[in-house]
Amino acid sequence: MKGFIPDFSKGDGLIPAVIQNANTGKVLMLGYMNEEAYRETLTTKKVHFYSRSRKKLWMKGESSGHVLEVVEILIDCDLDTLLIKVNPHGPTCHEGYESCFFRRVKEDNALEIVENRVVDPEEIYGKGS
Amino acid sequence: MKGFIPDFSKGDGLIPAVIQNANTGKVLMLGYMNEEAYRETLTTKKVHFYSRSRKKLWMKGESSGHVLEVVEILIDCDLDTLLIKVNPHGPTCHEGYESCFFRRVKEDNALEIVENRVVDPEEIYGKGS
Repeated sequence: MKGFIPDFSKGDGLIPAVIQNANTGKVLMLGYMNEEAYRETLTTKKVHFYSRSRKKLWMKGESSGHVLEVVEILIDCDLDTLLIKVNPHGPTCHEGYESCFFRRVKEDNALEIVENRVVDPEEIYGKGS
Repeated sequence: MKGFIPDFSKGDGLIPAVIQNANTGKVLMLGYMNEEAYRETLTTKKVHFYSRSRKKLWMKGESSGHVLEVVEILIDCDLDTLLIKVNPHGPTCHEGYESCFFRRVKEDNALEIVENRVVDPEEIYGKGS
């Protein structure tokens, strides 16, 4: 691949990718990419991540069908963080919310849910999910 | 401090914090927080980070005056990523742009600047910055 690639040299070779709804501006999730995940994302126009827990490449939506279709990729001043604007096919969070950031920290440091669930996670991933 | 705190137990004890303009929805930057930076952010209502390169706590805007005033703090489903909505006092990027994400990756993988510079970095940080 010719041209620019991000700086994967720091730390563990992974960089964070912030995912934002291209139409509404809502921030949907943050995932990590290695160079392979970045290249797959560019090639397929669907967001791919590297799972730190499962230690493997995965396409967001491979189980649920809720893929993140790439609209635009931006890179920060240090070249080690991505902002990817997407057209999301369905809710992004595996817990059934539109965004993974569905809770806010209140003044007393308790958490409060600020979104409505769009789907039941069991409907997407089956029972026991 | 009573109540919820994020999960700082993974990896190097740092978690990413996505900074978003509370009024416009524009994503401004991503920084890392340790527990001290998180607590300082809550207490002062101004965003603090832990610098991975300088290995120290810092307040965003401590040199430039361009502080990030906290409006709302959201946490993701895994409790290890923050989304902080802010009222920014001046441009966020040290290169003089409103956002650190001022370049996009084009179809040919070249980078293209998609914002106008708001201020000359030398005016903020002095010559040689």
